[in-house]
Amino acid sequence: MNAVARARPAGAGTDFLQLTPAAAPSRGLTAWLADALRAAVIDGRLAAGAALPATRALAGDLGVSRGVVVEAYQRLSDEGLVSAHHGAGTRVLPRPDTGPPSLPPQPSTARQAGAAPPPATAPPPVSTAPPPVSSLLPGAAQLPQPWRALAELDLSPGVPDLSGFPRAAWLRAERAVLAQASPADLGYGHPDGSPWLRRELAGWLARTRGLRAGADDIIIVAGVAQGLALLAQVLGHQWPGTRPRAAVEDPGSRGARDQLAYWGLEPVPVPVDEHGLEVSGLDSSGAVAALLTPAHQFPTGSVLAPQRRRDLLGWATASGALVIEDDYDAEYRYDRAPVPALQASAPHQVAYLGSTSKTLIPGLRLGWLVPPARLRAPLLAAKHAADLGNPALPQLVLAQLIQTGELARHIRLARARQRERRDALLAALSEHLPQARVQGVAAGLHLLITFPDQARSGQSRRPGDADLAHQIQLAGVAVHPLSLHQLSPGPPGLVLGYAAHPPGQLREAARRIGAAAAAWLAPG
Amino acid sequence: MNAVARARPAGAGTDFLQLTPAAAPSRGLTAWLADALRAAVIDGRLAAGAALPATRALAGDLGVSRGVVVEAYQRLSDEGLVSAHHGAGTRVLPRPDTGPPSLPPQPSTARQAGAAPPPATAPPPVSTAPPPVSSLLPGAAQLPQPWRALAELDLSPGVPDLSGFPRAAWLRAERAVLAQASPADLGYGHPDGSPWLRRELAGWLARTRGLRAGADDIIIVAGVAQGLALLAQVLGHQWPGTRPRAAVEDPGSRGARDQLAYWGLEPVPVPVDEHGLEVSGLDSSGAVAALLTPAHQFPTGSVLAPQRRRDLLGWATASGALVIEDDYDAEYRYDRAPVPALQASAPHQVAYLGSTSKTLIPGLRLGWLVPPARLRAPLLAAKHAADLGNPALPQLVLAQLIQTGELARHIRLARARQRERRDALLAALSEHLPQARVQGVAAGLHLLITFPDQARSGQSRRPGDADLAHQIQLAGVAVHPLSLHQLSPGPPGLVLGYAAHPPGQLREAARRIGAAAAAWLAPG
Repeated sequence: MNAVARARPAGAGTDFLQLTPAAAPSRGLTAWLADALRAAVIDGRLAAGAALPATRALAGDLGVSRGVVVEAYQRLSDEGLVSAHHGAGTRVLPRPDTGPPSLPPQPSTARQAGAAPPPATAPPPVSTAPPPVSSLLPGAAQLPQPWRALAELDLSPGVPDLSGFPRAAWLRAERAVLAQASPADLGYGHPDGSPWLRRELAGWLARTRGLRAGADDIIIVAGVAQGLALLAQVLGHQWPGTRPRAAVEDPGSRGARDQLAYWGLEPVPVPVDEHGLEVSGLDSSGAVAALLTPAHQFPTGSVLAPQRRRDLLGWATASGALVIEDDYDAEYRYDRAPVPALQASAPHQVAYLGSTSKTLIPGLRLGWLVPPARLRAPLLAAKHAADLGNPALPQLVLAQLIQTGELARHIRLARARQRERRDALLAALSEHLPQARVQGVAAGLHLLITFPDQARSGQSRRPGDADLAHQIQLAGVAVHPLSLHQLSPGPPGLVLGYAAHPPGQLREAARRIGAAAAAWLAPG
Repeated sequence: MNAVARARPAGAGTDFLQLTPAAAPSRGLTAWLADALRAAVIDGRLAAGAALPATRALAGDLGVSRGVVVEAYQRLSDEGLVSAHHGAGTRVLPRPDTGPPSLPPQPSTARQAGAAPPPATAPPPVSTAPPPVSSLLPGAAQLPQPWRALAELDLSPGVPDLSGFPRAAWLRAERAVLAQASPADLGYGHPDGSPWLRRELAGWLARTRGLRAGADDIIIVAGVAQGLALLAQVLGHQWPGTRPRAAVEDPGSRGARDQLAYWGLEPVPVPVDEHGLEVSGLDSSGAVAALLTPAHQFPTGSVLAPQRRRDLLGWATASGALVIEDDYDAEYRYDRAPVPALQASAPHQVAYLGSTSKTLIPGLRLGWLVPPARLRAPLLAAKHAADLGNPALPQLVLAQLIQTGELARHIRLARARQRERRDALLAALSEHLPQARVQGVAAGLHLLITFPDQARSGQSRRPGDADLAHQIQLAGVAVHPLSLHQLSPGPPGLVLGYAAHPPGQLREAARRIGAAAAAWLAPG
């Protein structure tokens, strides 16, 4: 007799949820229960104000441990879907209407709260200088190339552990793919990508990030950079002759900001604090889109707080704006499961972006875009006009790696290795640089450390963090000054990528950073 | 004692050319001699009007067979660099000034001869319909998908022999690459592509197509489609707020035309005859660029005649316009060496495009763009903003295939196989469809056949070739009607791709095409 068939009523009555733990896949009861409850909240079976059953009661009802239920409730709370109060139990929160908009957003609506951007009849100015040898993605190297070339230890954020690429597994998968692929698989494909990869990814993204997307909702793109380019093009076409505004995190990825600007959007900085983007700043931004990194903000490492998630989606619904979710490193969370993607709560408001750049290598140039349904057709037209579609073979190899479980295995190993590196760097920093404050949650492939704005008492003209980064560079270590990713003045800091070096090298890097910082912090 | 050291004077004196047959690489004396003479014409050592030595004299001088010299002269004549007249010998033709323009072309100059295009302040309209499941490249499938799905024999042009992809060689090369590549090879690269591949390609393109380009002149792109997109973007930025005109061949690739239009250029059709593009039509086109397929025009199969090549470059120099050379299938010439690329004669006027789509598979999405030096920086900025750069591994694998000679070996085999298929289809067409006229030279992966405009005597309302293609489709064979690639009315015809089927299947296809055409041609 399973949980559903039992006659005994659960606290708030959950039979209608058809919860059957036996149906939970092997990946775990907690994720299964959280997914089922989230789906019920989103489709209205659990209405606003409804009380969830007491954790003990539901656990008994389902025949699972109470910890499973507690953790599932916590996940929904992190997502801003429910709230728990002592005495009042856990209740479903009222939700902003996140259905599909009946009309495309109008610029007058989207902008009325802020100053209208100046109309721009000319295409965006294009630099004729060679582009920087760097990535556009969060955390990617943005320093001038000579700096990097000089550095013995490269702690630039954004580049994963390239030496950890599973070459043997990749080659095995490619051999299998070449043995199975039909000739038609090798020809001109559809611009949305390999159907097999999209099927595998739909399952992967549902399991790992809670995404609500089928294979036909996914567009395979050449990395997050191309995804941003396509979205910017489509937004630009919606407001011809203007330069629509896009809110960006400040501090935030310098490269992503430059990318939006190249494609004709005007980046508008919105501050970030320890709870992520200060969503209230969007109201006066006049933005038609907001780009953010909710699961692990770059570079501060904060997680978008539950209420902020709710407010963000409320803003998007009210203004008709698009939320662009750059989920660049969610595979690396060390203390608990990462908060599910925003897209899981609001597929009509969110365009989700992810890639293999942090889990495998950036050189694959392989990512995915999951847009709201209304944007799919123009995005496919843009992808087709860009390059007809992504290369076939790497798509098939990735599908094979997902299907065989090799990708999951690789990420487990990489996560354990990266956690060890993070711990080593943290320990060494606390020894060699006790003045610095480490920001953010235990996640990702980089750390942000900040310094008090006036650490040198009585000194009002301390050089900026770019100067500190330069001094560190002279000691053979490449790092990013926080100011590289800031649009407005803020506290000085350093962004340190730890992915590429074993613990011993990270300790040595921390020693050199500490020495340089001590001189920089010392009263002049 | 080598040729140069000999005291005996050659007809016009060639010692200054430093011709040393011993320096000729193994690929053949003819190519070596043609290259050396071409270089001398282009750099001015052989001035306009200068007589080349008599073929017999130069052959004796160099110690090579006379056939080598005759063939080398013929190549230069095909390129429009020299002309041979009975009695007058072979003389260097005056050349349009094809040095780098001192000023960027001005729209007023470029357009003064034609009606000015209407200014367009809005971005080009973007279709919100899903893009066709097809390629943008010459000869690629453009028919509605249902037609293709129904066809038992697919003779749509543009797709190579997908089953001939050298899977084992590719996997071997990838294994070698994965064993050698450094971690840095797998990270974010430079937007112009792998230095190793660019070095290998520079040599390959010089050997096979006569290109004058070093590794640093090449940009690796995601196929010719992306190359066109990047060029169109840069041209659009040069004339902000307008819709610059681009001359295209008529008939010509439907997909390439659509691609230019998507990116904001206005395609202007210029007629094609048996000598290629009617270059005189450019003068009144108002075009700032001309896109053409000089080595093997799509779909007519003609080769751009020597005088036309000269006139084209003269037009480009006088108007400041850019020539875009789509060298899509030059590897497949069956009767003789293909005419060298236009770029070899005028690197400052020509942007050269090629890819692996016809030699390997379209699914690689791997090509190259060799632009004039002045366009390199903005093109790199556009490539960076599009996708940061091409995927790393396939670039390294292609470099390995070139370096080991595997690519050359594969193309030799494919060329022999394709020639056999072409011959089989030609023979079967002459048996089953004697009314049709086969157009073009012995090259490529497709045939164009045309019918007299009024084959049915006394009938003035014969259905168009789209109707014929539909009847053929009903018999289980997919072909393209010529009208699919025409902008202006022309004779009815069919474009038949023979790459994907062995001779027996091609004979069967010809039988069915002949039966359908007989009914279509018969008096109603």
